[in-house]
Amino acid sequence: MLRWRHHSKVNRRGFILSGVALFGLLAAALPLAAQDDSLPSWKDGPAKQAIIEFVQTTTDQSSPKFVPPAERIATFDQDGTLWVEHPMYSQVVYCLDRVPAIVKEKPELAKVEPFKTVLSGDREAMAKLPMDDLLKILKATLTGMSVETFQAEAKKWTETAKDTRWKRLYTKLTYLPMQELLMYLRANGYKTYIVTGGGQDFVRVYSQGTYGIPPEQVVGSAAGTKYGYEKNGKPFLTKEPKLLLNDNDAGKPEGIHLMIGRRPHAAFGNSTGDRQMLEYTKAGDGARLAMLVLHDDAKREYAYGPAEGLPDTKVGTFTQALYDEAQKKGWVVISMKNDWKHIFAFEE
Amino acid sequence: MLRWRHHSKVNRRGFILSGVALFGLLAAALPLAAQDDSLPSWKDGPAKQAIIEFVQTTTDQSSPKFVPPAERIATFDQDGTLWVEHPMYSQVVYCLDRVPAIVKEKPELAKVEPFKTVLSGDREAMAKLPMDDLLKILKATLTGMSVETFQAEAKKWTETAKDTRWKRLYTKLTYLPMQELLMYLRANGYKTYIVTGGGQDFVRVYSQGTYGIPPEQVVGSAAGTKYGYEKNGKPFLTKEPKLLLNDNDAGKPEGIHLMIGRRPHAAFGNSTGDRQMLEYTKAGDGARLAMLVLHDDAKREYAYGPAEGLPDTKVGTFTQALYDEAQKKGWVVISMKNDWKHIFAFEE
Repeated sequence: MLRWRHHSKVNRRGFILSGVALFGLLAAALPLAAQDDSLPSWKDGPAKQAIIEFVQTTTDQSSPKFVPPAERIATFDQDGTLWVEHPMYSQVVYCLDRVPAIVKEKPELAKVEPFKTVLSGDREAMAKLPMDDLLKILKATLTGMSVETFQAEAKKWTETAKDTRWKRLYTKLTYLPMQELLMYLRANGYKTYIVTGGGQDFVRVYSQGTYGIPPEQVVGSAAGTKYGYEKNGKPFLTKEPKLLLNDNDAGKPEGIHLMIGRRPHAAFGNSTGDRQMLEYTKAGDGARLAMLVLHDDAKREYAYGPAEGLPDTKVGTFTQALYDEAQKKGWVVISMKNDWKHIFAFEE
Repeated sequence: MLRWRHHSKVNRRGFILSGVALFGLLAAALPLAAQDDSLPSWKDGPAKQAIIEFVQTTTDQSSPKFVPPAERIATFDQDGTLWVEHPMYSQVVYCLDRVPAIVKEKPELAKVEPFKTVLSGDREAMAKLPMDDLLKILKATLTGMSVETFQAEAKKWTETAKDTRWKRLYTKLTYLPMQELLMYLRANGYKTYIVTGGGQDFVRVYSQGTYGIPPEQVVGSAAGTKYGYEKNGKPFLTKEPKLLLNDNDAGKPEGIHLMIGRRPHAAFGNSTGDRQMLEYTKAGDGARLAMLVLHDDAKREYAYGPAEGLPDTKVGTFTQALYDEAQKKGWVVISMKNDWKHIFAFEE
């Protein structure tokens, strides 16, 4: 319509038309990314370009790859994809931080491993605890209490505990470009979900305030609960040490089917634990976007995975094999170093 | 504001004021229900009144029981609450209807019980099959295929199979007053969920078209899936005979916590299988609504439960104990006979 109005001015004011036409030509020649300011922390480049093209293609009704609003589902891994996962998953820090309170309730644990090591405060020794010991700590700190008690404790922790490097609340260590991406997708009718190997109940405590994602859109590793009654007859749910969903690897597409029931059109991860989610997403019809965050910025955040050839760590790993598969299958790798102008909101 | 405008007219036109004031007095004296036409198939009475008062109280920002939009969750049982469950759950009919196709794939089943009985077509004998045999049929017809294959088969069935009494598609046997209630709650910012003992994957196939409820808002009994690959490398999910969630009784609040993560503000059921969901809902703070549909209309639908003192049937039962508990705890009983002007949309 605008174009026609401009055309109608031609005969009277050729000068204005020239200006308008020139602007139009320039706009057409500019990369798409430069025309869109929904992702200001992203540098122009293939990653930003892939996101914008995907959104434009799937939301344009005249596009053969148009996706009806109800089917616009985007899933995000959390640790290492939406916020910092190094040197230790935040939820593991939470569990370690909870140990003194647990031991106070059950003093007999003070002399038993792995609780003894945790109480010593020796972070290096804690980081070396074998998986079996870690699971004992998770079990002691994440189960056996009511859902409400757990929620209150986790909430208090997220509002007070700070990381050792930036001295900030963990919920402030989210990646600004990914926050922009979440908002950009939502502004275009996408329902954004977290699909995390972390605890579903844990992430749900802060997902709305931190990411604008409501608890019912958080899929995570989930333990069962047991319905029971207080002495006064009031019913409550107890968190049980019974794993219902291990939301890693193949557990991610399985969890997506269980909790959402639709195949995502876009999926974002950063490690081998997200491999199957990306593969499952791309296996759908039409336009599908799969992206992997590569931690290659030792200065502003961390560098690990194929970027630095680091050995396997306890946290999710971006192996060389995953990198090669991404190249082969058209999964877009996001370089934190090269694709992101800013990493954290607090940088500015 | 309007009132002030009317007041300003007083001096000039006392006559108009009288009319306006009279109307205001009348409106205040009339029951709330009479002022609201969102529930036209509901007769004025305590059930309709309870719904409207609940919605007005929880959506009025000046009310001490105001509920923020994000927390407006309403959960509905399906069978017997949203649609007909007698004489047999629709999903059980689906499974029985699928048996011939299953036997065609595995001819050795033709001579084995319970498949032999099902193939005989003797509905009375089928209705008498013990639970163990029924489970064998569910396992054979609901698991072992890909999620997509199951969805395609179930979709075809819901679009073609008709019940024996009304000779209509099962999806047309929904209760019109409950459809109005779903819409009324959604119009007031409530997110409506189905929380069913039926199969989650089954109900998700038709929930959007039948109830306006998207698949991700269906919580049901759920089996696990297994991620695997076709020969060409394409990934797919197989439905496994491994029960993750038995969404009945205590399984309903447990399933709500797993899949939604919030306590509902309103819950609707019709049988002992919904008891804990209603109890859990009412145990929350502020305004909470719990309602039970009583099947007491033998003419227009069916009569069973305390209404008729019928013996236990295979489908959910509304026992006398449940009725007494509802009275005691302020759960509102909906009489299909007395509270509903119409039961089905096709009546009119």
